[in-house]
Amino acid sequence: MAEAPDIVAFDVLGTIVDWHTGVTEHLRETFARRDLDTDPAAFAVAWRGRYLPALRRVNDGDRPWASLDTLHRESLDALLDEHGIGSRLDESDRRRLVGTWHRLPAWPDSAELITRLKRRSTVVALSNGSFALLVSLAKAAGLPFDGIISAEFTHTYKPAPEPYAKAAELLEVDPGEILLVAAHGWDLAGAASAGLRTAFLERPDEYGPGERTERSTDATCGLAAASAAELARRLGC
Amino acid sequence: MAEAPDIVAFDVLGTIVDWHTGVTEHLRETFARRDLDTDPAAFAVAWRGRYLPALRRVNDGDRPWASLDTLHRESLDALLDEHGIGSRLDESDRRRLVGTWHRLPAWPDSAELITRLKRRSTVVALSNGSFALLVSLAKAAGLPFDGIISAEFTHTYKPAPEPYAKAAELLEVDPGEILLVAAHGWDLAGAASAGLRTAFLERPDEYGPGERTERSTDATCGLAAASAAELARRLGC
Repeated sequence: MAEAPDIVAFDVLGTIVDWHTGVTEHLRETFARRDLDTDPAAFAVAWRGRYLPALRRVNDGDRPWASLDTLHRESLDALLDEHGIGSRLDESDRRRLVGTWHRLPAWPDSAELITRLKRRSTVVALSNGSFALLVSLAKAAGLPFDGIISAEFTHTYKPAPEPYAKAAELLEVDPGEILLVAAHGWDLAGAASAGLRTAFLERPDEYGPGERTERSTDATCGLAAASAAELARRLGC
Repeated sequence: MAEAPDIVAFDVLGTIVDWHTGVTEHLRETFARRDLDTDPAAFAVAWRGRYLPALRRVNDGDRPWASLDTLHRESLDALLDEHGIGSRLDESDRRRLVGTWHRLPAWPDSAELITRLKRRSTVVALSNGSFALLVSLAKAAGLPFDGIISAEFTHTYKPAPEPYAKAAELLEVDPGEILLVAAHGWDLAGAASAGLRTAFLERPDEYGPGERTERSTDATCGLAAASAAELARRLGC
């Protein structure tokens, strides 16, 4: 059993909330209202597919800082054009779809996992979402984080070292006193480079039931758990 | 009845937590252990008395940014010397006393007030305490803020405009969509200057039972409530 860390920092999008279900549902409603037969689940995956390349352009200095909402809006606009449906969605449709990322369902075990870990550790969100997005998500889904730390505080995105280092600075601990929990190897690798402990938490349905995603058996470093219950158990909570 | 605001931002030290009781208790224990007859309640008031002048030196540029812990430590060291007991408290005593400000009791109605307001509004802490101090306070006292915003994010202290403006920026709202609740006129005046709405919440025992403090009848702007229950009622919660 691993020792319960002083601080547990959770990635949010994919790890704590189910963006695929939430975004697909809003796309389905929008496409239906606009009489479009575009597949909303596939569109959601394509939209999320633009995420890492967009972060990389900011981190590489190819463009100035832009919030995740701005990046989501740009990739939405581009994808709609690529699907030949750019003329069918108006400004208010697009704003509402970008806002979808502020109101996503949590995985069914997320709130309980946070609550259990809070008995022994300080539990924070550490995410690339904006502070406003994270506050809104946590409130809507009833996620009782002890604090919310956004990559926005550093104007860089994970997996650059700054957001992880900022978490340690703000919490006044050494990086090694923080355990980052995420469902994505790229995030865990960034955290490990910044000196954090890491735990992979498998979210097999992140891209929809039966779709390929990262598995705990692929994790290359730190603790790896196939479920929230296993993670809590292995942390002694 | 005032309309429930989108965002309620609470001052914390004095407004949500009872620093006087918490700090006095720790001073009493320390002084007793060191066999000192210094009055802990008066010492707590004197320590807090150094707070606003210390913030002002940072805001006026008379010294570089320093965290509230650093300011508390400096004023503690100075006060101990002035009381002629500097040689009686060692480094670990002093560290523990500064840490006291991270673990203070909440006023008995604070958690319920936050919980009630959360039904209609997003409720955040907006305080001069460091992020780590605020996370620790909120966790220890069970204060379910939706988010925590520290003046540390701006390297200036309330009542300078930056921390209030930062809250609006991070929450992606106009300043006028935030209601700042505080037990101190200087904080409300700063908030009003930055364009926030304000509410005075009376905490008659802030400096100990029967000691002089600000009253709701002294409030010069915005809403003024003589109790948490009155504040919630007047906000329709």
